[in-house]
Parts: sequence; C-alpha cells; structure tokens
Amino acid sequence: MNPEPIFDVAHLAHVELLTPKLEESVQFFVDVMGMIESGQKGDSVYLRGWDDYEHHSLQLTASAKPGIGHYAVRASSPQALQRRVAALEKSGLGKGWNDENVGHGPGLRPALKNQASRTPNRGIALRRIDHINLLAADVRATRVFLQEVLGGKMTEQIIFDDGSEKASWITFTNKTYDVAISEDWTGSKGRLHHITYAVDSREDVLRAADICLEHKVFMETGPSKHAIQQTFFLYVYEPGGNRFEIACPGARLVLAPDWQPVIWSEAERKKGQAWGLPTIPSFHTHGTPPVD
Amino acid sequence: MNPEPIFDVAHLAHVELLTPKLEESVQFFVDVMGMIESGQKGDSVYLRGWDDYEHHSLQLTASAKPGIGHYAVRASSPQALQRRVAALEKSGLGKGWNDENVGHGPGLRPALKNQASRTPNRGIALRRIDHINLLAADVRATRVFLQEVLGGKMTEQIIFDDGSEKASWITFTNKTYDVAISEDWTGSKGRLHHITYAVDSREDVLRAADICLEHKVFMETGPSKHAIQQTFFLYVYEPGGNRFEIACPGARLVLAPDWQPVIWSEAERKKGQAWGLPTIPSFHTHGTPPVD
Amino acid sequence: MNPEPIFDVAHLAHVELLTPKLEESVQFFVDVMGMIESGQKGDSVYLRGWDDYEHHSLQLTASAKPGIGHYAVRASSPQALQRRVAALEKSGLGKGWNDENVGHGPGLRPALKNQASRTPNRGIALRRIDHINLLAADVRATRVFLQEVLGGKMTEQIIFDDGSEKASWITFTNKTYDVAISEDWTGSKGRLHHITYAVDSREDVLRAADICLEHKVFMETGPSKHAIQQTFFLYVYEPGGNRFEIACPGARLVLAPDWQPVIWSEAERKKGQAWGLPTIPSFHTHGTPPVD
Amino acid sequence: MNPEPIFDVAHLAHVELLTPKLEESVQFFVDVMGMIESGQKGDSVYLRGWDDYEHHSLQLTASAKPGIGHYAVRASSPQALQRRVAALEKSGLGKGWNDENVGHGPGLRPALKNQASRTPNRGIALRRIDHINLLAADVRATRVFLQEVLGGKMTEQIIFDDGSEKASWITFTNKTYDVAISEDWTGSKGRLHHITYAVDSREDVLRAADICLEHKVFMETGPSKHAIQQTFFLYVYEPGGNRFEIACPGARLVLAPDWQPVIWSEAERKKGQAWGLPTIPSFHTHGTPPVD
Repeated sequence: MNPEPIFDVAHLAHVELLTPKLEESVQFFVDVMGMIESGQKGDSVYLRGWDDYEHHSLQLTASAKPGIGHYAVRASSPQALQRRVAALEKSGLGKGWNDENVGHGPGLRPALKNQASRTPNRGIALRRIDHINLLAADVRATRVFLQEVLGGKMTEQIIFDDGSEKASWITFTNKTYDVAISEDWTGSKGRLHHITYAVDSREDVLRAADICLEHKVFMETGPSKHAIQQTFFLYVYEPGGNRFEIACPGARLVLAPDWQPVIWSEAERKKGQAWGLPTIPSFHTHGTPPVD
Repeated sequence: MNPEPIFDVAHLAHVELLTPKLEESVQFFVDVMGMIESGQKGDSVYLRGWDDYEHHSLQLTASAKPGIGHYAVRASSPQALQRRVAALEKSGLGKGWNDENVGHGPGLRPALKNQASRTPNRGIALRRIDHINLLAADVRATRVFLQEVLGGKMTEQIIFDDGSEKASWITFTNKTYDVAISEDWTGSKGRLHHITYAVDSREDVLRAADICLEHKVFMETGPSKHAIQQTFFLYVYEPGGNRFEIACPGARLVLAPDWQPVIWSEAERKKGQAWGLPTIPSFHTHGTPPVD
Repeated sequence: MNPEPIFDVAHLAHVELLTPKLEESVQFFVDVMGMIESGQKGDSVYLRGWDDYEHHSLQLTASAKPGIGHYAVRASSPQALQRRVAALEKSGLGKGWNDENVGHGPGLRPALKNQASRTPNRGIALRRIDHINLLAADVRATRVFLQEVLGGKMTEQIIFDDGSEKASWITFTNKTYDVAISEDWTGSKGRLHHITYAVDSREDVLRAADICLEHKVFMETGPSKHAIQQTFFLYVYEPGGNRFEIACPGARLVLAPDWQPVIWSEAERKKGQAWGLPTIPSFHTHGTPPVD
Repeated sequence: MNPEPIFDVAHLAHVELLTPKLEESVQFFVDVMGMIESGQKGDSVYLRGWDDYEHHSLQLTASAKPGIGHYAVRASSPQALQRRVAALEKSGLGKGWNDENVGHGPGLRPALKNQASRTPNRGIALRRIDHINLLAADVRATRVFLQEVLGGKMTEQIIFDDGSEKASWITFTNKTYDVAISEDWTGSKGRLHHITYAVDSREDVLRAADICLEHKVFMETGPSKHAIQQTFFLYVYEPGGNRFEIACPGARLVLAPDWQPVIWSEAERKKGQAWGLPTIPSFHTHGTPPVD
C-alpha cells in the first residue's frame, strides 16, 4: 500500500442553506447559535463562527422550500486547484465556474490575536464549521467521487451484510471527517442530511441543549455520543426546516498516514449510538432537497 | 505567496525520555498518567496513550541524569521519507540510521473499534502524544531546520523588540503545533523543555490536577490557559525530573492553507498567560539535557 | 402558611442492596464505580463514596434475588431521634430497633484534610450517596409517611389529570430531594427503583458512560437531563440486577424556607425528559423487591 | 457535644454594593455576568441570578466610593425571626428595623417550571448568590457574633501558630459556607472582601474567564481551586472597584450534623491554593469599605 496524505482540498469552506423563513433562520443562527453576521447580498445573509477564518462558512438564502444550495471546499494552493479542476473536467461532472463576491461585515478585535473573531456574547457561540452530511441515493458513487475527483480519504464506513454501502465518512484534513454520506431511504437525490459546527467540549454541547430548550428549538436527538467517529452530538432543526448539528470531536484526529477505514457491520449498527441510544427513524427519512 | 500544505512529516511519532528513577517514572506514567505499557527492551520501557496508534509514543530509558534521548517523526509515505532524507543529507546535519525493534505488549480490545486501545481504568488516561517543546540556544536556527529540512510550517512566534526570536511553533499537521522551540536562558544546547499529551476537555486537565495533588506530583504551574496557541495546560515534573504537560487544545486547528504566523511582541508576552497568570521564572531555566 | 425548615432527619445514611452475585456486585462498585470498601461482616460488604463521611453508605448483601434490604436515615440530634421515634410509634408503623456494628476499613489520608477519604484512582470515583427512589403501590401514602413521620418536605410532584399522585420528591436537607417515590405499575409493594450517587459535573456523568461502555455495563437510559429536578442522569444495572444512577445535581439547592412544591401535569410528563428524550417503558416496570 | 442543626437563618438573601460607577457596574452585572435586572428605586438597581428565588440578591447603589451598604439574611420562619431579633437585642448590637420595598421587574417564563427565571442568553449567566466574604479587624469576634446571635455553624477555620484566628467559614445551610470572615491586614473595620455567585461546573468558571478576557475585566487571580472548602474560583473586580467571585462548589455539602470544624495551620496555609498557586498579596489588603 502506498499512503498518500496529500490533500488538494484544504477544508470545507462554506454551505448555502435554503430557507423559507429567512428572517427567523438568521435570528436562530445569530441569537441562539451565536454566530456572526458577515454581510448580506440579494436574498442571502452570510454568517461565520468565531473561529472561522473565511468571510463566511454559512450562507442563508431565501427560498420557497428548505434545502441546500451548494457547498464549497477550499483548494490547498493554485496548483491544487488546477489539479482538481482537471480531475473534475475529466469526470464529466463539472458545471462551470461561479464567482461569489460579498463584502465583509464589521468585526471587533478579539482579546487574543490568534483568534479569528471576537467571541459573541450570546447563545451557543459556535466555534467553526466542522462537516457536511449528504443524503445519497447511491452512497458508493458519491463516496468514490469525493475520493477520486476531490482527493478525499475514507476514514469510516458502514457495510451491511448484503454488501451494500450504507454510509461513508471522508476527510481532506487531519479531522476525522469533513463530509459524511448516508443512504437516503426515500431514494431522493442530492438531499442534505445536516451541516455541523464544532464547539470545544461536551459540556458546550450540553449547554447548547439547555439554550435550545429555553428558545423552544426542536431537538431531534441527543445530546449523546456516536459510536462511529465518537462524535458527541446534538441535532436540531433550524426554523427553515434544515437539520443542524452542534458537535464536539474532542481531541480525536486521524494523523496516521496509513489509516485503514474502520468498517461497521449491520449488527454493530443496530446497537444504536455509543451508549445505547437508539437511532431515531427520522434520521433516515428527514432531509432537505437540493436547489431546483 | 504560494501556500504549500503538503507535509512529508505525518506526525510526531515518539519521544525518548531519560530518567535516573526508571521504576518511579514508569509507575508515574502508568498509574498516575494512565498510560499503557507497550513493552520493554534493555534499559527502556515503552508506553502509549490509549488513542496513540503507534506501538509507543514514549520511551523511558534508565540514565544517570534526566533528559531527552531522541524524538522521532513519522514520514507520510516512502516517497516523503526519501525526500526528507535527501534534504537532511543536503543540510549536512544527519547522523545516519538507527533501527528500533520492540515487541508489542498485550492489549485489550476497546468497546468501540475505532479506538486504538481500551481506555485504562486508572489515573488521568492520557489520550495521545501532542507535541514536544525544545529549549534552544538559537531558536531561529532550530526553527529554520524544522521548516527547511523537515518541511514544517510555522504558526505562531515570539519576536522581541530587538528583533530576537524567542520562541516559535511548528506544525506538520492541522494541529496548531507539533514542535515548539523556546529560548534557553542558560545558553545550554539541545535541552528538553517538556513533552505534552492531549486530553479531551479542560475539565480533564482540572481532573488531572486533582489526581496529581492526591499523588503528591509536583505541579509547576497551571492549570491555566496560554495566550499563545490558547492551549489549556498543566505542567508537572515526572519523578526523573523531566517537565511534562497535560494539555487540551479544544477544537482549535489550523486548516487555512495560507495561515500567516501570528507574531507576539515583547509587550504582549509580558502580560503572562491568557487570563493574567504570570509566567513562572523556572519556565525559562528548568530543562533536561540531551543524551551525552 | 407556616414554613418549618427544621429537619429531624439530617441525611440519607445508607442503603442495603441485595444481590445474587455478591462478588460481581462488589467488583462493579469498587472497580467501575470507584467506591471504597469499608469492611465486611457475614454476608455483607460495606462501601462508601470518597466524600461520604459515614462508615458506609452502601451495604451489599448476598441474597437469592436482587432487591433492597433496608435504607437508613440519620437523625440530626439525640432529641431529634427521640421525636422521630415517638412519631413512628404513634403511627404504629415501627418495627423496633436493629443495631448494626461493623469495623472500619483501612483508609489513606487524602491530600486535602477537608475531604473524607482519598479519591480512588480508578473508575468513576463516585463522590457521595445522593438519594433513593422507591417504587410504591400507593405513592400518596408513602409520601405522607415521609412527611408526617419522618418530617420531610415535598419539593416536586407529578399529579395526573384524574388527580392521582404518580410521583413525589421529598427532602430532609437543602438538597432538592433525598427520597423519590414513583408509582409501581406492576402494583408490587416495597420495591426499589434505584439508588443514586452524586458526581461533581455533567462531564463526570458523560465520563461515567464511557467507563460503563468500556466495562460492558448495561446502560438503561441517559446520560440526559431530567425535567423534574433538572438532575443530569445515567441509569445502569449493577450485576445483581438492581438499577443504579450516577447523577449530577449541579449547584441547584432548595434554600427557600417557603418553597412551594412544583406540580407537573400529565401533559408535561408526557414530554419526556428535559431535552425531549422519551421516558423508557422499563422505567415503570423494572424494580427490585424488598427483603422477604 | 450536642449537635444542633436547626438554623433560624435560612440563607443569605442579598448584598448591597456601593459603586462610584453605577452605570458601568450595572452593565457589568447584566451584560458580562449575565444577571437579571429586577427593578430600580432611587439610586439603586436591583439584580438577581437566574436561579435566585428572591426579588433580588444584589443591590447596586450609586456612591462616591465603592464598598458595602449592607447584607441581609432571610429567617426560616416568623418564629425564627423572633428568636434572632431577641438574640440581637440581647447582644446590644442591633440597630433597629429598615423596611425595603421595591417593585418586581418583568420576567420571562423559563422552559422548565422548576426554575426561578429564564436563563439569560448573554454573558456568564450566574446561577445564584452563594456567599459573602467579610474582612474583619477581629475575626474571632465577628465569627462568634455569627454563631451566637445569628445561629451559624463554623465549618472551617485558619488558626496560626500563635493561636490567632485568621479566617473562619460559617454556614446556615447544608452549603459548606454562607459567610466567610478574613483578617484585614490593614486593620480597617467592616470592609468587604468579596461577594460570590455560583455556577454549575468548573468549566463554567473557565468560560467565565474567557468572557472576562474578551470584555477586559480585571482578573485578580484564578481560575484555580482553593484548598479550604475546595471551591473552584475566579476573582475579578467589578467596574466600581469591589471584588467579585465566580465560583463552583461542586457537589460538596455539609450534611453531617456533628461536623467538626476543619482547622488549617499556618504551615498549611503557606502552601497556597490546592494545586500550589500562591495566594496573591492583594488578597489581604484590597477591600472596599462599609457605608459611612
């Protein structure tokens, strides 16, 4: 085997969520999640966590239905970008260029200069974007695309007894995953399962649940601990209807260049989450569609 | 600028500590720090944290004096290894090869298969090796070596008003640092400041202090929070006399391919740690020497 | 109303659990729960948490079936004891005296002298006994007994739409409860729902779940947060079959002398736990019987 | 000995702080400390923590100098009040009655009905008043007053080698202390050392330090852990100049009716805080005076 840790993709850059309740969604992400508004343009409002170094990691766009507009990854270098564009063109799956340009919102200097933004004094104060979880009609095809076209590395995977691939986790970094892909039991294509922001501790996730309770946010499941990836999680629905996760990865990283994917069996998956919490049925059915 | 995220070094592999009290040092790392013994060979005992994937991340070797034997980094691939060997030979700083071969100690299967080892049911239960901090007579030269010969990236730095480089932090990963270099005020060469293992939360570090108190471990400073790198820290001395850090990095990572080093000034450094704790004088003088 | 904060009962003293697997139960409480063995006598092993000031707070007794032997409360003073004995005799529910006398196990001095015992360097390290939860065929009668004969104060209560009393929480201290009483849906009498020990933080409860996972302890439900009393909980079964709770009360206390019981309705109870976790069915049926 | 757990004082009710910067002090307690404004009257603003059941636990009053106006304790019952008034009159230390009457500020219903107020979505969100620490020219006389006139119980104490009483801790509840008394090295009378509010976890105190750092609040010492009472602490100065503590007591309580005071010697006190942090010199000199 020839381990190849060189990622042309540096990290998940941002996600565009569609929402039929833009104002309420903005209020949710600013007041309850404690994110920072970076700017507005047209029907979109741009947001970031206090430790996101990009202009924004979340774009909320007014729409008739909830769903996902697009997600973007950032290239590691101009050369890396060229390599990935070539791979994309070769795959025949590209759709051309799309420039974005939005102004940067006002910022306050944080007390410590090695921090991207001042920590918001409200809500959960989400730290940074962590990952996106896609629902796929064909998990395997989506996973192979992320590996072969974008150069990702698979870290964990669910394979059922009949050999079918039910979910896969892909990383471009030392994070244990940047993109997760789960099977869509409804057979729909291109739907979003959820996007996730990271906080620093499990206690932060518990505190997030207390804040969501006080703000009447619908909590679908958690806080609890996943067996897969061992992430400590809380899933909620934002006002527009998209699923959203607040998560703590702890100090877990994939540093080994020869990391072999961990394969979870059907029997193991049936055990539910790490501490025995059953996986809720809506996890396999609730998703929000891609932009028309 | 041309960002170059490709690291030929995958991660810090292990550190060899010299100790005049081998038995007590082993007991300290096994019973109080909660590490796992991987094996023994000659005058050395090999240990790892429960989430270290290598055979060992710490080698304790009996010696007349405390100090550092060597530290090792792991290459990302055979090609990466060749490139770094070539760079090392070109630099004229190489010292030839040194093979290690030790047997693997008995292990117990963890409850979750995506975990390297079963979590020890004792002590602090250190998770994984995090970084090494070197004391250098010439910080700049050591830093340039790590950048040019090993291909590291500098993330933070202290530069005093007279332009002298007092400390630098180097990473080979998305961790914010794998090697730190601090000026040795005694002018000694090649001394060790400390090695560090990571735990998952700041509460884990507080709990570590409670455990150290109960075991009469000398705590030099902390728990508190560094301004630089924002690490939550506790520094102790292991029985052999080497400084040892238990640390929590939180969810902080360097994912940006164009990260510019954060430069801390003399005035900023004088403020002490993040919350105002003064830096203790022994931090600039206590170090343990390299092997003779 | 005339508040009367004077408690003749000082605190819950200890509970005797019956177990058909004495050796395994002892190992569970010592190795996994991190309790301290205080002594042995006959078929019983005595244990305490590191911050329990009594000789023991838990007595494990070999028995053909799991269950509860007895529980004991401690009087505030000799006069208080006389008053409660008089009230008990008047009620006609007393069963006479029963002297216990067991030797004190060896102890190690803790690092801090204001702590009852040295913190065990293993397992969950339970701090102190917190409360007992009884299953009652008649919740109201049991609650009135605890109020009128033992002088307890009710802090919270569940009353269904038909006026039936489903559960009540009684305190003798500034703790929000020392005894909980829940309706036994099986109609059995005198069964134990669970006993509970306290830890210092919610993170301690999460850590307890990690430790239980690693030791294959059956976790019935949690960690999560109760709406009633807001306790952060984890319920497990000890090897003998008795339900056991690890809980964190946080800084919540009942200090107000005129505290009015909080009444929870049938509709509120149906919402499940604080963050929406459904109450599991076994919570209303699994209990362990009183000694024959 | 005849233990007497009956407290006529139910709990610390409120403290009046004098501040030369009323507006800034109010902003500090509302925005940074996350307290709730209960009302205003004349030169005073009234505040409470989200789990304080009284109208207010803190009264800020405009004044030329910082300091303490008064502190109040709440009686357990009308009879208890009569007993304490009689004891006070007998002691000759009473100063007559002083009625307070202020309107209650608007409140929002919390999500959980067993909680006094909705948790503020800002700042540290202090839970409830915990204790007051007085500076005394004569520690012993003040301690005896609290015991004999108010009926308090001493839980810990510092006695130096010459027999002098340097500090004492008094409780009226199962909390380990409600009033602390420390020697004033300046010989001043009636000064305030600090008042303290409780949060639920040590992580909450660390988060408080992060918030104080971001708001440029002066942090005098901590976060760290006291040896005495084992409280996890952070001391700051509010804008008016009074010392203020954010603290976590953990699950520690004094439940034993026959608790004997823990006596700390001069040598023990010299060791500093629990983990070795030296006691800062300003702790013995900075205090704010009583109202003229």
